Amino acid sequence: MSTIKPTENIESNPRVKAVFDDIRKTRNSDFVNNMWYYIAFDEDLLERTWQEVKLVMATPSQIDPLTKEMIYLAVSIANSCAYCVHSHTAAAKAKGLTDAQHGEIIKIVSLAAKTNHIANGLQIPIDDVFDAEMS
Amino acid sequence: MSTIKPTENIESNPRVKAVFDDIRKTRNSDFVNNMWYYIAFDEDLLERTWQEVKLVMATPSQIDPLTKEMIYLAVSIANSCAYCVHSHTAAAKAKGLTDAQHGEIIKIVSLAAKTNHIANGLQIPIDDVFDAEMS
Amino acid sequence: MSTIKPTENIESNPRVKAVFDDIRKTRNSDFVNNMWYYIAFDEDLLERTWQEVKLVMATPSQIDPLTKEMIYLAVSIANSCAYCVHSHTAAAKAKGLTDAQHGEIIKIVSLAAKTNHIANGLQIPIDDVFDAEMS
Amino acid sequence: MSTIKPTENIESNPRVKAVFDDIRKTRNSDFVNNMWYYIAFDEDLLERTWQEVKLVMATPSQIDPLTKEMIYLAVSIANSCAYCVHSHTAAAKAKGLTDAQHGEIIKIVSLAAKTNHIANGLQIPIDDVFDAEMS
Amino acid sequence: MSTIKPTENIESNPRVKAVFDDIRKTRNSDFVNNMWYYIAFDEDLLERTWQEVKLVMATPSQIDPLTKEMIYLAVSIANSCAYCVHSHTAAAKAKGLTDAQHGEIIKIVSLAAKTNHIANGLQIPIDDVFDAEMS
Amino acid sequence: MSTIKPTENIESNPRVKAVFDDIRKTRNSDFVNNMWYYIAFDEDLLERTWQEVKLVMATPSQIDPLTKEMIYLAVSIANSCAYCVHSHTAAAKAKGLTDAQHGEIIKIVSLAAKTNHIANGLQIPIDDVFDAEMS
Repeated sequence: MSTIKPTENIESNPRVKAVFDDIRKTRNSDFVNNMWYYIAFDEDLLERTWQEVKLVMATPSQIDPLTKEMIYLAVSIANSCAYCVHSHTAAAKAKGLTDAQHGEIIKIVSLAAKTNHIANGLQIPIDDVFDAEMS
Repeated sequence: MSTIKPTENIESNPRVKAVFDDIRKTRNSDFVNNMWYYIAFDEDLLERTWQEVKLVMATPSQIDPLTKEMIYLAVSIANSCAYCVHSHTAAAKAKGLTDAQHGEIIKIVSLAAKTNHIANGLQIPIDDVFDAEMS
Repeated sequence: MSTIKPTENIESNPRVKAVFDDIRKTRNSDFVNNMWYYIAFDEDLLERTWQEVKLVMATPSQIDPLTKEMIYLAVSIANSCAYCVHSHTAAAKAKGLTDAQHGEIIKIVSLAAKTNHIANGLQIPIDDVFDAEMS
Repeated sequence: MSTIKPTENIESNPRVKAVFDDIRKTRNSDFVNNMWYYIAFDEDLLERTWQEVKLVMATPSQIDPLTKEMIYLAVSIANSCAYCVHSHTAAAKAKGLTDAQHGEIIKIVSLAAKTNHIANGLQIPIDDVFDAEMS
Repeated sequence: MSTIKPTENIESNPRVKAVFDDIRKTRNSDFVNNMWYYIAFDEDLLERTWQEVKLVMATPSQIDPLTKEMIYLAVSIANSCAYCVHSHTAAAKAKGLTDAQHGEIIKIVSLAAKTNHIANGLQIPIDDVFDAEMS
Repeated sequence: MSTIKPTENIESNPRVKAVFDDIRKTRNSDFVNNMWYYIAFDEDLLERTWQEVKLVMATPSQIDPLTKEMIYLAVSIANSCAYCVHSHTAAAKAKGLTDAQHGEIIKIVSLAAKTNHIANGLQIPIDDVFDAEMS
């Protein structure tokens, strides 16, 4: 179920086709996942979301591609986004995530959630030494 | 402000002292942050939380220490834990996080949150190909 | 799947029937959505929830009905409530939401989520000028 | 800091005074916490919020008063509401919460958060036997 | 759908079998729910998660078993974990949760969420008297 | 406290100055709030965040400026972003939000949170009629 009905033959729209072509080229794959089909009803949303994903996730930078996917997945778990957990687990596996690392991510994410709830639950005051403005 | 009043001279309790000593030794630092002082009112909570943090975060594994901190930080941001954001940003910096990487984490985390809300907002159906049970 | 089994012939209960009749009358429609069938196992929960929804959402006030639905939808997205995202997208469409406005809501909600994570991620201090008590 | 400036002499408003008097009488205490002062700018919000809190939390029912506070506190921790964590920890202590129970709540809440993130992280399918509609 | 494919004949692994046997014995039931099958791909995750669940939830303590389940359920609802809401509602029912109490939990949890959003929405300052460190 | 130390004389950086000048011009005000000072350590983050905020929030569209701020504020409350709640309440007031409307937003947001938790708590199945793909 969805709250949007994807347009049929969506790639007959040249703005949509241009983005889909770039997704296929960037990922070196013919597969385009549902995310892009469903947001294509708003061309501006499609173009700018892809532009940002490409820039942040698919451009060489100071953090390697697999680590980026792990961070993305961690946020998606914490924000309870079922779609994103599925798509970014798949993306991480495509970038080499092993089963052992998968298990580790789950351990880190769930431990972080645990201590997040401990710290919020006791309202632990922040140590002065953690204030970057004082350094 | 806090909902717990830390006990004075808490290290006169030998179970607490043993944990604090191990924290100092593991981190090779005399500094023990508030988290541990505030949860020490429940020795069992203190011992088991530290044991898990040590095992998951401070034991060599398939994910390097800085990446672990990035994942931990990402979850803490998504879960709105101010204490944890401060403590794990500090921990990541201590493990070598550069300003450029710090900026990148913020970009990845905030982009993930953005697409999490897009996917949840449109209730995008999960692609069959993402189902690990079918693979 | 659900954690509650709706009672059969629930409208044979006069307290439930009174609420369902008022829902139909207020909305000028015979359709009653699952929300009300599933909470009807607790008549008090049913009566008071409907009373509040009617008062806040269906009574003329200083915010127009479509804007109210947009705000309701925004919260439901942020709180990851799949049921509520579906029901309030439908309600907004019934009140005139266009595809262009639907796209805009998604852009605003996802941008807000993005900057929420930026502000929480950097723990940006609140400007004094934003303090209503100082005005 | 707050986004609302509480009105001075707010109890000169008879609708506000009536609610404040009922809060004092119900709680058998002269103290009225900030929550009520800050929402009093909207008399309808004040009256209906207090009415609901009184009905759900201060009326004898099938769940005892201390357990109710524990549940309320658990939700407030998970929703990162610093104000509510403080006020409901205080309320629970006033109803007899011991330090040992306080520690236990933190352990249960943080364990739940941990397994919530594990289940969401792996997208574990719900067992058919948990479906109440099949029972 | 899931992001993990459970291993076939998983109990042929002695570490997994030992945990599953202990789950069955502790719960006095042959049924083992999906949670444990899906996390068994990482034996360490399985062993330590079960150990913690058993210690916190299945060991006699200062909070009775049904109340523990209510707290666990409350957190799971707030964290939008569909799996956990289903499994812990079932667990609470197995420990005696009545329909009336089920309705009450929903009322308390949803009221807490309501006031959480009011307090966060107005950024209500925490009363000094709630500071445990000042007591 | 913050996890970033804003650079002194940040506007001596021409990329930063260009953005700050555009913020002042777009808002017709000399005031630049902390958000922009704190993210300026990463010029790319600054430029792209402002570009998106300007495009989505400050460009005439199918949703009026005050309604946009209300939606933004609603998300910020649900995501527990104290900074964003403060800044967007101030922005909404600057665009004409009355006290009566402010009270209404709080009522809608908190009611939505309440029913979000009810629907998630009972795992209410989505009505087929809400599926946009079937329409």
